[in-house]
Amino acid sequence: MSLTEMSVNKCFGGKQGVYSHKSSATGTDMTFAVYEPPQAADGPVPVLWYLSGLTCTHENAMVKAGAQAIASQRGIMLVFPDTSPRGDDVPDDPDGAHDFGLGAGFYVNATEAPWNANYHMADYIAEELPALIAANFPADMARQGITGHSMGGHGALTIALRHPGRFKSVSAFSPIVSPMNCPWGHKALGGYIGDNRDDWRAYDACALIADAPERLPILVDQGDADNFLEEQLKSHLLREACDKVGHPLTLRMQPGYDHSYFFIASFMADHVTWHAEALI
Amino acid sequence: MSLTEMSVNKCFGGKQGVYSHKSSATGTDMTFAVYEPPQAADGPVPVLWYLSGLTCTHENAMVKAGAQAIASQRGIMLVFPDTSPRGDDVPDDPDGAHDFGLGAGFYVNATEAPWNANYHMADYIAEELPALIAANFPADMARQGITGHSMGGHGALTIALRHPGRFKSVSAFSPIVSPMNCPWGHKALGGYIGDNRDDWRAYDACALIADAPERLPILVDQGDADNFLEEQLKSHLLREACDKVGHPLTLRMQPGYDHSYFFIASFMADHVTWHAEALI
Repeated sequence: MSLTEMSVNKCFGGKQGVYSHKSSATGTDMTFAVYEPPQAADGPVPVLWYLSGLTCTHENAMVKAGAQAIASQRGIMLVFPDTSPRGDDVPDDPDGAHDFGLGAGFYVNATEAPWNANYHMADYIAEELPALIAANFPADMARQGITGHSMGGHGALTIALRHPGRFKSVSAFSPIVSPMNCPWGHKALGGYIGDNRDDWRAYDACALIADAPERLPILVDQGDADNFLEEQLKSHLLREACDKVGHPLTLRMQPGYDHSYFFIASFMADHVTWHAEALI
Repeated sequence: MSLTEMSVNKCFGGKQGVYSHKSSATGTDMTFAVYEPPQAADGPVPVLWYLSGLTCTHENAMVKAGAQAIASQRGIMLVFPDTSPRGDDVPDDPDGAHDFGLGAGFYVNATEAPWNANYHMADYIAEELPALIAANFPADMARQGITGHSMGGHGALTIALRHPGRFKSVSAFSPIVSPMNCPWGHKALGGYIGDNRDDWRAYDACALIADAPERLPILVDQGDADNFLEEQLKSHLLREACDKVGHPLTLRMQPGYDHSYFFIASFMADHVTWHAEALI
């Protein structure tokens, strides 16, 4: 697996790089970003995954979330993957909608045609990219945390729940907590994996929490002025699912905050600190 | 002078707003951004101006520089103006070059046609917009600092030098220190104000420092891996101009850093702290 370096910029004493590679999971070229803190020059450092939301690429959080400032202080590597396969041959939503197809992989492995040719973001994020990171960066893969925003918060929660023992910490910003119970989720899961709702449970954080073999504590920040809260995000469902089985959850409703990166940046230091306490 | 609110997002406990208004200085609609820290809810706070570089709008620093994090802690308002007039009727570089016309106002008052109809960014930044800020935001105009990047660093230095007594602090990231001595400057000053080089001195930080009636200390950070350093930025000329007259300058050459916002973000906290020490 060879990498092409697209750019490297010195940043807070470390290296902010962007890389591309041919992905076997998606059958396309994929682009991702890695921030190596200054401590990585002396040996492997823990890794924090950041999964982005609808319409985003590797770039949004890399330039807008302000995560490098604190990752540099704590000595944590950041990995920013893309949110879907891309390319002229990759099928997209026929109407060009923002919530399906390009930029909206939903961190699932599609089984329905034509999406099943490329949309294997679950395998890409959980299998192929970790192997690539381990092989090419000074990453201590025994110390991994995962976070994300919105669709990426859903990705972070479900990937952590589907891989017990892999992550030492998990958090999310305004996550879609139950795709089985919101329009974005119905469209994505129905489209990518079909109409059998039993198959959807593997990609629903609230469903997975019911049977989770591991009770990794979850930190969630959610703005109460978020336009998507009521219809799509529904953080109360996560509260209920966790309460039911005693899964530790810190759910912070943040007054006046919306769904934007201004919200994410405001609480990024808290999240990196949450992960640092488990990883360092 | 009435303002139209384009967007407001809660950010680090304060308000990140974007506003537009009809400018008499430029004869166009102008857009700018203001960050009000949480302390502004209790009364007027000091103001830090951030002037952006070539190709930028009000948005670049607002989303990429990470300044709100520390401005929130220190209780400083941030103002992010645009870099030129804009609109279908505003003349642009005939070749669409990035270094003249739209996005490249150079913080001068143009005297040459056709630019003199709209390109009055010196008046806009130094006269019209401060009056608008004073009238519409909880800004303590007796406590102002100014900074900027590249062309905006040139703007910050020259506007501070042209208005002795107005600012309590000044700094710059990789500024164009002497437009009279670099290709970007020759093109901009020649185009906007004509071939008489005596007229250029009012917009050249190194020339202004020679006769400055005020010796406000300057902080400059400059990456030594900046591709524009040798041909355009030439920070050594600022060093020489300051040494000649004893103007206090802290010029920090930052090893390995380039011209990007990853560099700016890395040292933004230092700059806001520099201003806070003079303003608070």
